[in-house]
Amino acid sequence: MKLLKDRILRDGKSFEGGILKVDSFINHQMDPILMKSIGVEFVRRFGHLPINKIVTIEASGIAPAIMLGYLLELPVVFIKKAVPKTMENMLTASVYSFTKDKTYDICVSQDFLTPNDQVVFIDDFLANGNAAMGVHQLIEKAGASLLGMGFIIEKSFQKGHESLRELNIPIESLARIKFLGDNRIEFEE
Amino acid sequence: MKLLKDRILRDGKSFEGGILKVDSFINHQMDPILMKSIGVEFVRRFGHLPINKIVTIEASGIAPAIMLGYLLELPVVFIKKAVPKTMENMLTASVYSFTKDKTYDICVSQDFLTPNDQVVFIDDFLANGNAAMGVHQLIEKAGASLLGMGFIIEKSFQKGHESLRELNIPIESLARIKFLGDNRIEFEE
Repeated sequence: MKLLKDRILRDGKSFEGGILKVDSFINHQMDPILMKSIGVEFVRRFGHLPINKIVTIEASGIAPAIMLGYLLELPVVFIKKAVPKTMENMLTASVYSFTKDKTYDICVSQDFLTPNDQVVFIDDFLANGNAAMGVHQLIEKAGASLLGMGFIIEKSFQKGHESLRELNIPIESLARIKFLGDNRIEFEE
Repeated sequence: MKLLKDRILRDGKSFEGGILKVDSFINHQMDPILMKSIGVEFVRRFGHLPINKIVTIEASGIAPAIMLGYLLELPVVFIKKAVPKTMENMLTASVYSFTKDKTYDICVSQDFLTPNDQVVFIDDFLANGNAAMGVHQLIEKAGASLLGMGFIIEKSFQKGHESLRELNIPIESLARIKFLGDNRIEFEE
């Protein structure tokens, strides 16, 4: 997605050790016009699948997911990163975060993810794939079908895409980055 | 906003003690079409103000805020509920949550909220107003100007609206609920 890659080159900040900051337009401050274009691109990639619901995870996945849901006129469920006391029928899974070096629980209500649901999962980043694998577990526990996964940015030098390949579903990333260094960003072809 | 009130009556669940669950269309599963209509209603209420940015708080505020930002073609900043280690130039404020009976920090980067910014704050619920007052503090610390606050649902039997009145800015709630009991929901006129 050229528009996105150009924006990453213009406004993204990269650092030694594979670090990319896109908090001026994706995950702290967000550009809603770009999010709409990202939604349209996800329609191009997933619009042929018989999905009835979009699934994402708080907080940075919500903006692209709601745009995709709006365009496809489908409900959007966001998985929570903390288990609320007041919620019933919760399903949970554990995710290990390398960045934070700790394990956290993610959860979703069975009321909104059921064996009748055929979903696509949308998130901002694919890196080591741990969060995505946790989401896959949760969707499996719910008995729902995961038909595809879409990410705004993929760090293709990390193992996420490789791990997700075993799920045998389309994994789509709108910008695949193969190298991040001090002030240097290189995309896959 | 009639569409919203009708939806709350149809899909909201109310319980003894002033409890309202709208997690089937607002804060766990979201209806993107309704969120767009909510965005349009916020344009009606705030579109005359000289705002250059929308501010919200994760996670349930993001969907209505991104729709408003999309319609007005303005950036959206979401305040975080946990202070990330990796973020620089952070401003923080403390918020006491009655629901969870604990105090938590909220934060925003000074890079995205500056003395040049004139903002409207959008969130899903106004109840006791503690989160909104914390957000007001954060915006004040940043030197930005808060021109208005908009909420999807207000529990007008709680003290939030009253506390926010002292800010002397427009406080807009799209559905104001004056009573919540077991299976009973009453709106203000």
